[in-house]
Amino acid sequence: MSDSILVSANEMQHTLYNILLRYGFKKDKALTCAEIFTANSVDGVYSHGVNRFGRFVEYIKEGHIKKDAEPILVQANQAIEQWDGQLGPGPLNALQATDRSMQLASKFGMGCVALANNNHWMRAGYYGWRAAKGGYAFISWTNTIGNMPAWNATDRRLGNNPLVIAVPHGEEAIVLDMAMSQFSYGKMEMAAMKHEQLPAIGGFDKNGHLTTDPGSIIESGRFLPIGYWKGAGLSLLLDILATLLSGGMPTHEVSKKKIEWSSQVFIAFDLKNLHNYSSVQSVLNSIINDYHASVKVSPEKKIVYPAENVLDTRKKNLTNGIPVVKKVWEQILKLAES
Amino acid sequence: MSDSILVSANEMQHTLYNILLRYGFKKDKALTCAEIFTANSVDGVYSHGVNRFGRFVEYIKEGHIKKDAEPILVQANQAIEQWDGQLGPGPLNALQATDRSMQLASKFGMGCVALANNNHWMRAGYYGWRAAKGGYAFISWTNTIGNMPAWNATDRRLGNNPLVIAVPHGEEAIVLDMAMSQFSYGKMEMAAMKHEQLPAIGGFDKNGHLTTDPGSIIESGRFLPIGYWKGAGLSLLLDILATLLSGGMPTHEVSKKKIEWSSQVFIAFDLKNLHNYSSVQSVLNSIINDYHASVKVSPEKKIVYPAENVLDTRKKNLTNGIPVVKKVWEQILKLAES
Repeated sequence: MSDSILVSANEMQHTLYNILLRYGFKKDKALTCAEIFTANSVDGVYSHGVNRFGRFVEYIKEGHIKKDAEPILVQANQAIEQWDGQLGPGPLNALQATDRSMQLASKFGMGCVALANNNHWMRAGYYGWRAAKGGYAFISWTNTIGNMPAWNATDRRLGNNPLVIAVPHGEEAIVLDMAMSQFSYGKMEMAAMKHEQLPAIGGFDKNGHLTTDPGSIIESGRFLPIGYWKGAGLSLLLDILATLLSGGMPTHEVSKKKIEWSSQVFIAFDLKNLHNYSSVQSVLNSIINDYHASVKVSPEKKIVYPAENVLDTRKKNLTNGIPVVKKVWEQILKLAES
Repeated sequence: MSDSILVSANEMQHTLYNILLRYGFKKDKALTCAEIFTANSVDGVYSHGVNRFGRFVEYIKEGHIKKDAEPILVQANQAIEQWDGQLGPGPLNALQATDRSMQLASKFGMGCVALANNNHWMRAGYYGWRAAKGGYAFISWTNTIGNMPAWNATDRRLGNNPLVIAVPHGEEAIVLDMAMSQFSYGKMEMAAMKHEQLPAIGGFDKNGHLTTDPGSIIESGRFLPIGYWKGAGLSLLLDILATLLSGGMPTHEVSKKKIEWSSQVFIAFDLKNLHNYSSVQSVLNSIINDYHASVKVSPEKKIVYPAENVLDTRKKNLTNGIPVVKKVWEQILKLAES
């Protein structure tokens, strides 16, 4: 990116940490938050890393995010616990929920934390990496504001409700992190700015025709669910489950709020006590080897498993620095000085 | 259907029951199997009901399905249990796993049965209806033989791995039952026979172009995952989780077998002990009411939640009889006499 600079992970984390301290965060919370925003940027998910940090601070200033709020255990029923996030910092709440689901899994074979009233958790995949690196299989999702129409509808009442599924893979992890919309708003906005077409059909134009033109889709607001009616149905059920299990707000209520008050679910599976634990990694390798042996449509194409590319990006960004849009970094530096 | 006849649910169940008795099924197993095949047909899922029964009997005759085999508990770790289906009748094993996951959920708040070495379970939705009507929220999926290429690949190494998510809805249920391919082989075959185009892009032709022409897709074998790379990734992770949790076979091993030896996961959530149990149904109604209030693309279109249409089909088929292709019913009657 020509208008971007390279910032080392250390410098980014230190800068974000100091800003959070200035805005009244306690040291440990500031550090964890700075770590998460930096890790997401290192992994190349800038939209839920450094690019989003300014808005995070704004929400703290405006009181949408309660910087000192701690999640409260509302009800415990053995392997499943219901927590209330109290609108505390989304990544902190989500991290605590992830870790608690792992503890429950160690005790009960599997564990679920259903979390109501959380702020935006940023990047779903972060929690997948966390659990998988801890040795657990993991399923988690969140509901969101309405940003996608139901099938046969024009107004946006369904969330894109990101879903993460993760398993340990050697020292690393396989982490699927996917929203229910074919493309994110950010991706379409970026393509529109560059006057590029999307790599696949991404929604309808205002005349109801499927299109790869991002500008027309943004204009109509009719973002395409993955698999058309199928992704719309999956989005609805993820919202229902997250809402019922957590006792939190469904998408249609979240949409009325100024910012996202999400309902979230974190499910961890203990692998160590499975009868087949000793063969888990070799079986996983056999699956990935077979997957990689697929016949390619053309020699230059790659067959990659979810998050396989992250490892390269992570290495590159840790070595060379994280590419940050100049303007974004300047605004962050201003926050550090203001 | 002009070449179809109407068979009452009672007659269908009685006929299938008698055939299974002739093939050596014990009475209770014959009855349960006949009930499941009939219920799937009553609900309009003929492909995994009456239309599939002939093949089920064939597999019994050939010994692929071990009619007397009982699932064995291999390892129990509190809320999660690993069972081996011993290649018994798929629907019986799956039903037992569903019921056991509900028992575990009542005891531990949530429960998971991971089932290795099961035969084809027929219709995923059946188990969703079962759990939801029992008062539980439910997530379940199976792996399958490879029937869909990875993204950027031409050979079929991923399963379509049907996923079901269900919740109780008043006296009925909301049941999402979806495979990871945009269309099933059966649906494309049917459309090709009728010289119809698919209602959406369903795969690639042999030249690598996306198409709605079912014949071209069947020719290339390049069925489209829902959401392109996203559904491919979800399919892979569902296979990985089912395999690791059950200790059963992954898709690439299943593909080498003559018939499906599936790995399956059944997760039930106890709703009764949630702190918000008393409001679960009213909140669910609010979600569905908002969903139904969507602005339609045109007046004749319907906004339906997953399985909403099933209720109408069920009522119609119970009242008028189940429409069965004449030839299919004749073959079944022959099995009853042979």
